[in-house]
Amino acid sequence: MKVSVIGATGYAGAELLRLIYGHPKAELAHITSESHAGDKISSVYPHLLGLCDNELESMEDIERIASDSDFIFIGLPAGHAMEIGRRLEDQPVRIIDLGADYRFDDTDVYEKWYKVRHTHKDAKRVYGLAELNREAIKTAKIIGNAGCYTTASILSLAPLVKAHLVDVKSIIVDAKSGVSGAGRSAKLANHFPELYDNFKAYGVATHRHTPEIEQALTNISGEDVLINFTPHLVPMSRGILATAYATLKDSVTAEAVDEAFERLYGDEYFVRLRGRGAYPETKYVRGSNFCDIGWHIDERTHRVIVLSAIDNLVKGAAGQAIQNFNIACGFDEKMGLDFTPVYP
Amino acid sequence: MKVSVIGATGYAGAELLRLIYGHPKAELAHITSESHAGDKISSVYPHLLGLCDNELESMEDIERIASDSDFIFIGLPAGHAMEIGRRLEDQPVRIIDLGADYRFDDTDVYEKWYKVRHTHKDAKRVYGLAELNREAIKTAKIIGNAGCYTTASILSLAPLVKAHLVDVKSIIVDAKSGVSGAGRSAKLANHFPELYDNFKAYGVATHRHTPEIEQALTNISGEDVLINFTPHLVPMSRGILATAYATLKDSVTAEAVDEAFERLYGDEYFVRLRGRGAYPETKYVRGSNFCDIGWHIDERTHRVIVLSAIDNLVKGAAGQAIQNFNIACGFDEKMGLDFTPVYP
Amino acid sequence: MKVSVIGATGYAGAELLRLIYGHPKAELAHITSESHAGDKISSVYPHLLGLCDNELESMEDIERIASDSDFIFIGLPAGHAMEIGRRLEDQPVRIIDLGADYRFDDTDVYEKWYKVRHTHKDAKRVYGLAELNREAIKTAKIIGNAGCYTTASILSLAPLVKAHLVDVKSIIVDAKSGVSGAGRSAKLANHFPELYDNFKAYGVATHRHTPEIEQALTNISGEDVLINFTPHLVPMSRGILATAYATLKDSVTAEAVDEAFERLYGDEYFVRLRGRGAYPETKYVRGSNFCDIGWHIDERTHRVIVLSAIDNLVKGAAGQAIQNFNIACGFDEKMGLDFTPVYP
Amino acid sequence: MKVSVIGATGYAGAELLRLIYGHPKAELAHITSESHAGDKISSVYPHLLGLCDNELESMEDIERIASDSDFIFIGLPAGHAMEIGRRLEDQPVRIIDLGADYRFDDTDVYEKWYKVRHTHKDAKRVYGLAELNREAIKTAKIIGNAGCYTTASILSLAPLVKAHLVDVKSIIVDAKSGVSGAGRSAKLANHFPELYDNFKAYGVATHRHTPEIEQALTNISGEDVLINFTPHLVPMSRGILATAYATLKDSVTAEAVDEAFERLYGDEYFVRLRGRGAYPETKYVRGSNFCDIGWHIDERTHRVIVLSAIDNLVKGAAGQAIQNFNIACGFDEKMGLDFTPVYP
Repeated sequence: MKVSVIGATGYAGAELLRLIYGHPKAELAHITSESHAGDKISSVYPHLLGLCDNELESMEDIERIASDSDFIFIGLPAGHAMEIGRRLEDQPVRIIDLGADYRFDDTDVYEKWYKVRHTHKDAKRVYGLAELNREAIKTAKIIGNAGCYTTASILSLAPLVKAHLVDVKSIIVDAKSGVSGAGRSAKLANHFPELYDNFKAYGVATHRHTPEIEQALTNISGEDVLINFTPHLVPMSRGILATAYATLKDSVTAEAVDEAFERLYGDEYFVRLRGRGAYPETKYVRGSNFCDIGWHIDERTHRVIVLSAIDNLVKGAAGQAIQNFNIACGFDEKMGLDFTPVYP
Repeated sequence: MKVSVIGATGYAGAELLRLIYGHPKAELAHITSESHAGDKISSVYPHLLGLCDNELESMEDIERIASDSDFIFIGLPAGHAMEIGRRLEDQPVRIIDLGADYRFDDTDVYEKWYKVRHTHKDAKRVYGLAELNREAIKTAKIIGNAGCYTTASILSLAPLVKAHLVDVKSIIVDAKSGVSGAGRSAKLANHFPELYDNFKAYGVATHRHTPEIEQALTNISGEDVLINFTPHLVPMSRGILATAYATLKDSVTAEAVDEAFERLYGDEYFVRLRGRGAYPETKYVRGSNFCDIGWHIDERTHRVIVLSAIDNLVKGAAGQAIQNFNIACGFDEKMGLDFTPVYP
Repeated sequence: MKVSVIGATGYAGAELLRLIYGHPKAELAHITSESHAGDKISSVYPHLLGLCDNELESMEDIERIASDSDFIFIGLPAGHAMEIGRRLEDQPVRIIDLGADYRFDDTDVYEKWYKVRHTHKDAKRVYGLAELNREAIKTAKIIGNAGCYTTASILSLAPLVKAHLVDVKSIIVDAKSGVSGAGRSAKLANHFPELYDNFKAYGVATHRHTPEIEQALTNISGEDVLINFTPHLVPMSRGILATAYATLKDSVTAEAVDEAFERLYGDEYFVRLRGRGAYPETKYVRGSNFCDIGWHIDERTHRVIVLSAIDNLVKGAAGQAIQNFNIACGFDEKMGLDFTPVYP
Repeated sequence: MKVSVIGATGYAGAELLRLIYGHPKAELAHITSESHAGDKISSVYPHLLGLCDNELESMEDIERIASDSDFIFIGLPAGHAMEIGRRLEDQPVRIIDLGADYRFDDTDVYEKWYKVRHTHKDAKRVYGLAELNREAIKTAKIIGNAGCYTTASILSLAPLVKAHLVDVKSIIVDAKSGVSGAGRSAKLANHFPELYDNFKAYGVATHRHTPEIEQALTNISGEDVLINFTPHLVPMSRGILATAYATLKDSVTAEAVDEAFERLYGDEYFVRLRGRGAYPETKYVRGSNFCDIGWHIDERTHRVIVLSAIDNLVKGAAGQAIQNFNIACGFDEKMGLDFTPVYP
């Protein structure tokens, strides 16, 4: 399959190039960047020297690029992918958007949280979290690849809300991410000496991943889920750990919780259940597409606490996109993703 | 005042030596270490070369050391300080214990969580969190210095529970600490390559700081507080950020929350209120005795989220001990602690 | 080919398991560890869960393991591999030792620097730095895989001494390594808070990689090379940067230096020449088998300064071992190593 | 003494504010910043909240600021201080410039390396490295505070060149710095994910600290010193380690080297000689004004290797400035600098 990457110079775009390089059935056709058009990608990302020396193009003539591609991956800031999606509506190319434009069933929710008017409301799109939406992904024209924090959060809680084990109004997700999640644009907040040996929260009660988590959990449970989501910045490059809290319904036992996880993920390759009492670490999954999950029951407070670890650039972005691509192509889901994490 | 440090080779002990060096009215009398008795402290902590070259003694003859000291600071693992406290009961020396032995009103709680029999149940002790217990500290024989996570957690929530603004059964504290909090003993879990570029939780539903937070908040509020407390390890040396969640009672306004913080801490030097909507960072307080606090109201979920940052070795250990020492001596509370954080 | 890993629980051993997992023609037969015999490797290295759950065996009956293997990789401390080599002398199995036992032509040099008696002096062995010794590796019974610092240092200087462009008595190598190079044994020196935000040198004038560099450069140049080698510890997990200094012979031009690098490495896949004036970074090669090289001429001092970057666990250990394995098997040299670095 | 800080929002400026806060005889008069004029410094550096809330002014009317100050410290990029120096020539205010404008005896050297025309060539200035130039500093109108790399490098080599123990053409300084040395301006090169877990060199054969080191060593030795200086960036916030190499003259003994260090620094408070065979670490001096030095003799190559560690923002910038200020005022040299490093 010929694939192109629109917005290839962000961290997620670069990670896509790493994964496409190792994918036996994906051939890179075009890569674009407005700010670096004309440059070789290996001058922007020197680690790719000799491996991917393609020239970056402008995406201005996206129709031409699309006509030469079976799939395009989009790694642009919110608001840009929907323009591309609209322009390519009638071309056979399929789209996997790593941004948020196509993640919401209800574009009003999108507009409210992203403060952008949605210009492609009737797009034929599906939500791209493979473990929960596999069937729909197979034939979708446009896949709205799930976000990084949201992937970790939703996978943590899906078994519990699906099995109606928890009070859906009690959910709190306290999440922590490495700095690559903030993108590659230099700014004081992400200047090395400012973050090194430092830890902080941001976006309390306002982070845009909140409604995405709520939408997915509401869809799974059939109940109206309302959560608190708090992101934090960890002084490291990659990795997300989500710590999710929920109050168990009265008679729910630890065994029922165990079963819920086993039932939903027992056959999933990329979800590694580490079990009750376990502590997944971000380093256990670094560089890989795995989501590792452990959970704990607090008898005193009757809460369940779920811990999940992903690599934000892989299962939280580029890896998930390739997984969706594999599903959409009818390939083995782990094609090109079947490698171990990089440790230490 | 002549002061001695029992267990001077842990990180909290070393930090005490830094603060005592800069304190105009504290004179270092004795320092002890069982594993390094006979060595100079500057051979164990080379940064002290030329500044503190005292010889480490054994604490075997603690009575002699105590007779030569006005105050002793104890930086030993749980279970050891109470032995010393008992032996020194009849000497005039006063004790500030940086461990947990003297933190609990109810020694049954201590025994349950620490799995150690308490051997000094009738000790004349007070809980050493200066901002909440100043009067009692002034004349105490034994001060059970508050823990690191607990200081950040209690200071975050005290205004809210004192003013009865939140449901005391809804409290969750998700806390994150630098690795110095785990002590100086080498072990695989804290081996550099294992933690670097890594993030993880530990002690879910079982961490010993849980009952200490509950005790303090119960005392302040008069209500029976039950919480979830989850610690995490941040790949950095120093600093704690606590993210605390609580459900506001029905009619509580944002202004009422603001007032509660202002009322309790408006005159406190070491608590810096950064206000509603603010994001304290651990680097804002590094090396200093400050606790910086910001808070957020989520209208959607009717929860309050409080963020507090301390340096775990200063306000969370040695600095708080010096603050308590100043109070106990009748000195200006910030004597020897009146310096800026070290940034970046 | 059936391969076994003796001493699989060190970092180099674990990295071998990562690379073997991705190698299309290597099948893992046995893995050993004396301290963890009976455990699954994925309990020692949790990132391998579901990917490599083999049980660790003792190496006591090495003959049986060897009889079931085409190749064995040895990742043991100095002094242990030679015992194994001797015991397996008459078996057809071939050996790739990641330690130092088989790196020296002259075992007296080994004994002097390693303070260990060599017990397999007449071993049929070759030095395993692929770019410089490819022919000999093809048929070797025992391959003494080059060390980490030495790989970076030798590859930096080989073109210059081979072409007789520099004074071989003027060479200084100032090298910097991530902490994984120090192994996985917990000790105070590598305890997280001790190294984080810290930088130091060690082993000045005494590091064991010194004679290995001298041997290789002497062999290449035919001149008696004597160097200073200084290792430093960088607060990061992986990566080596070597900064090598040498005085150019009188009339040597910058172009002659350029040509020397081009001549020796122009056709090498794993050596990426970044050119004169370039600054390779360890992140450019992280997780990969590349050695990136840049060089600079100082007209004022008439010195050449060479910078080379490798991943100490890949090109400096496990990756080089796989590269040697490929050569020894007659496979494509980059089989199982043809992936991009992991960035950022 | 009333002191003002011109360019207070760089890292060195902020560090000056920390030290001035703790100095018993310095009173902060004015602080300036062109980009943040009108803001409180504590909004730019939140760690200073409540400690230093002064308003930043423009330096436009520098004469007025100077007339209200006994000393001004300048923390501006190269080329700006000399303008200020010229304008204040006839005012009694004394100047300590943390930049390079006043460091060079020969302004041609400055112009060649800094590519800026010098506009105050006849300034009455002295070089501000206290240990080597104390007498001249006492009465100087303008003090050109020594640079960060240069301080570590010069202090390492001064005893050797002063005693004529080494070949002055053989000197190589391989130096490593934390990222705060690169300033607070956000740019891709210093973006957190780019530097974290990464190591690189820069400025080979071209770094501007080269001629400053050569000038100082030439002045001390009376011989024409020519060196190689190579800076590297360590993924940490603070600290410099310099590794200096020099060839010993024929009959020079290890004892002669020891004596040279002892003779020059035996009475210096801020130079801590750790002795022959020692390994200073940057963490031994973090946050303090110390320069820790260890040295090694390699009998094989007849070279001496000197290791020195400083905090680049203290002894390499603001601390040295305060030390010079103390000397210039006739105060005890360690006034306001008499505290321990911050460890870990």
